Formats: sequence, structure tokens, C-alpha cells
Amino acid sequence: MTNSYKKKVSAGILIIGNEILSGRTQDLNISFLCDWLNKKCGITVEEVRVVPDIEQRIVKNVTELKKKFKYIFTTGGIGPTHDDITAKSISRAFKKKYEYHKEAYSILEKYYGKSNFNDGRKKMAKMPRGSSLIYNPSSAAPGFFIKNVFCLPGVPSILKAMINDVQKYLKKGLVITNKSISIYAVESDISKELTKISRKYFKKVDIGSYPFFRLGRIGVSIVLRSANKKSIKNCFIEIKKMVKKKKLKVYKN
Amino acid sequence: MTNSYKKKVSAGILIIGNEILSGRTQDLNISFLCDWLNKKCGITVEEVRVVPDIEQRIVKNVTELKKKFKYIFTTGGIGPTHDDITAKSISRAFKKKYEYHKEAYSILEKYYGKSNFNDGRKKMAKMPRGSSLIYNPSSAAPGFFIKNVFCLPGVPSILKAMINDVQKYLKKGLVITNKSISIYAVESDISKELTKISRKYFKKVDIGSYPFFRLGRIGVSIVLRSANKKSIKNCFIEIKKMVKKKKLKVYKN
Repeated sequence: MTNSYKKKVSAGILIIGNEILSGRTQDLNISFLCDWLNKKCGITVEEVRVVPDIEQRIVKNVTELKKKFKYIFTTGGIGPTHDDITAKSISRAFKKKYEYHKEAYSILEKYYGKSNFNDGRKKMAKMPRGSSLIYNPSSAAPGFFIKNVFCLPGVPSILKAMINDVQKYLKKGLVITNKSISIYAVESDISKELTKISRKYFKKVDIGSYPFFRLGRIGVSIVLRSANKKSIKNCFIEIKKMVKKKKLKVYKN
Repeated sequence: MTNSYKKKVSAGILIIGNEILSGRTQDLNISFLCDWLNKKCGITVEEVRVVPDIEQRIVKNVTELKKKFKYIFTTGGIGPTHDDITAKSISRAFKKKYEYHKEAYSILEKYYGKSNFNDGRKKMAKMPRGSSLIYNPSSAAPGFFIKNVFCLPGVPSILKAMINDVQKYLKKGLVITNKSISIYAVESDISKELTKISRKYFKKVDIGSYPFFRLGRIGVSIVLRSANKKSIKNCFIEIKKMVKKKKLKVYKN
């Protein structure tokens, strides 16, 4: 077991929402969370699932994922309406009572005012017993976490406003750095050489190859990712040598 | 068991690619596929998973999902480079030989020309024994399907060019129609009434409530989805009554 393996911190994401599965809403939280977790915390997202607003499906998936990964982040379903069932489902997954969280209740009561604090608004203060709050500087309604499961809202702008409050609770892993080069070539022009280099750096550098189309021309972005700065540097030198040897034009943006 | 339940056709999506999990690439295939499957085929996507380019993880997830849903659609990992391991992984999931598909081989050989048909390009003709091709009008390299698993490319524009070739192989379900209304309100203003209406139409109409922010104002989109046109019509009448009774302003875009 290498040192870099030991320091790896894994995460899973559970996107909860019929609006994503119906195709009505383009999800933006997966890419934001994956990028933020990696860059800010050195945490690698290893799996994402998208499930509908159905309690038993949420319970089953949370139960599976919370065992598989160090941290789970859920998005969606923590609002005031009937289709917001994340807190209730998480309570069942942890076999905890679903009840008012005192501080959440008082934050919401203060925000809306006593006379406007209706049942829907009160519902946002209910969560699994033993939860801690994730504060919401944008619209008061807090998220929460219990053990290794962090529950965030589905609206991307509110999620982004809340995410910094989460950082202090997370164990940091090795930050993965990346280096990339884009060239005018098709993948199959360089697949043999890339295979050779990727075998040499197996388990040290993750080499990805992604086609792109810009201004009517076809190209490939080669992306190196690694927690080891020396390996990524050496690997990048070999990639550049290969590009030069094959006389491929580099795309600069 | 109601008639509408019998006619429900389910699907799962497996997005294969480190570039999505690293946050480098914004996925666009989930929303496109979910929308296309529903509108063109009446097929409901019930779960999506995103997994890395690791053979055993792909095998495990395909094995699980292909039992759970009528159809599985994978995206990504069918190109010529070392990180394209979808076809090999699907072969393992089905315990089939991973071998050249004769027609795919000849399509690719013709496209590239005999002298340019290198090992990377040849790799794109390899798939599980017994696969059928999904033709690619955009860049020749075909996708394939075996039993209920359909393997598509990760590049959204190529996926879109290929998807129509898939339609004829799919059993059609009931197309879900939707109706929506956007109002200037916050969710918690209407949560009580929405809960009541959603209980009345339970299992007939799926009612979703989604906050929006436009030009500095807050609103809610109420989205009704159902395979039953009469139910959705009646439910929509009740929603409009509620909006009128509460004197909420409708947002028109």
C-alpha cells in the first residue's frame, strides 16, 4: 500500500430529484461538488447516483453508499413542500427519530416571524435526531449532517452559498493536481503511444483522453491527474515528447 | 395493479468516465437521454449512476442495473484509447468473449483506409460476442448493444447523432406528459395546499415544486407529470384555483 493510497479520502454523491430524471432540469451540482471536493479538500468522488423522490429508494441508496465511502453528499429534497422527503428518508436510513431540531426551528422562526411560521416552513426544521446544522447564509433554511452523510439543497446557487460551512467537518486528503495539453489529432492517432505511457505510469498518473471539436476542427485533450507532483511532471514531459515526435499541432486557448 | 403501471417501461443510465467524477467535464448526457427516452419512447429513467474508468466497478454496476431495469444505457469509454474500457467490461458482465465484430471491423477499415487502420482504431471494433451495432453517422465508430444494455459514446454531439438508431429496438411505454405553472411565491407559501392536492392525486399525478430566481425575484415552478391526460387536466385546474385564491402572480416567460 503506497502512501498516496493511504491518504485517499473517498466520497459518493446522491442526487435526489424527479426533475433530474425527467430531463426537465440540467444537473449542475455533480460537476460543482466533484470539483470543489477535489480542489478544496483533496476528496475524490468515486460514485454518483441520481434517484427519484421515493422514500424507500433514498433509504436503500443512502444505506449502501454510506458504507462504501468516507463521506456522502446528498442534494435536493430539503425544502418545505410535499416532495421534499430527504430528511425523513435519512432518519429512516439511520434508524433515528425524525424530529424538530431546536436551533433550526429557532433560526427559521426568527427568519419568517412567528405569525408567518407555517407548517411547511416548520417542516424544514425537522431532521434525524442527532443531526448538526449546515448554515445557510442565502435563505436561512439550514442543511444538516449526521455521521458521514451531508444533506445539501438542490438549488445550485444556495448549495454554493452553503458549501463552505461544510469544509471544517471534512478530513482532508491529497489534492489531485492536473496538467493537460490539447492537440489537433484524433484519438486513434495517438492511442498506441498513450497506452505505452499510461502503462509506465500505472497507478501513479491517471491519463485521460477526450475528443473535442472547435471551429470545425477535431482535437484531443490529454489530461493527466495525480497526487504526486514529480510523477505528473515526468509524465507530462513524455507526452510533450510524443506530440513533438509525431509533429502534432498544439491547440492554445 | 393499474393499467398505467403495466405499461411502465423503466431504464437506468450508467455514465462511465473519470472526467465527470473529477469535475472537469459538465455532463450533458443525463438530461438529454432522460428527456429523449421519455418523449420519444415513453421510457422512464429510474436511476443514474456515474462511475470511474475501472473495469471491476463498471462490471459490478452493469450487472446490478441490468437486472433492475428493462433497459440500461451506458455513455462513454468506447473510443480507441487505453482509458476506453466499456466494451471489454460489458463482455465480462455478460460473460461473453471480447472479440472483433465483423461488420464493425469492415465499417472502420473502410472509413480509415487499410493503411491507416491501426491498433487503436481496430480496438473500436471489439465488443462482446453476440452484440448488435448502433450505427454512427457522425464519425463511423459504432456503438453496440447486447441484450438490454445499450452502449453509447460520451461525446454529446455524437451520442445525439446515434440515438435515433436505437429507437427501433426499444419497447415503447406510456409517454409522460407535463404541465407547469410558474408563480411569484416562495415554496412555503403554498406547501400546505400542494400537499393536499398531491394527496388527492397520489399515484395519478406526480407534482413537483421547484424554486427559481429571475431578475432578482423569487418564484416557484409547479410541475405536473402524468401518463393520464384527464388526471393531469383536473389536477391543473385545482392548482390554478389555488393560485387564484391565494392571489399569486403568474410568471410568464
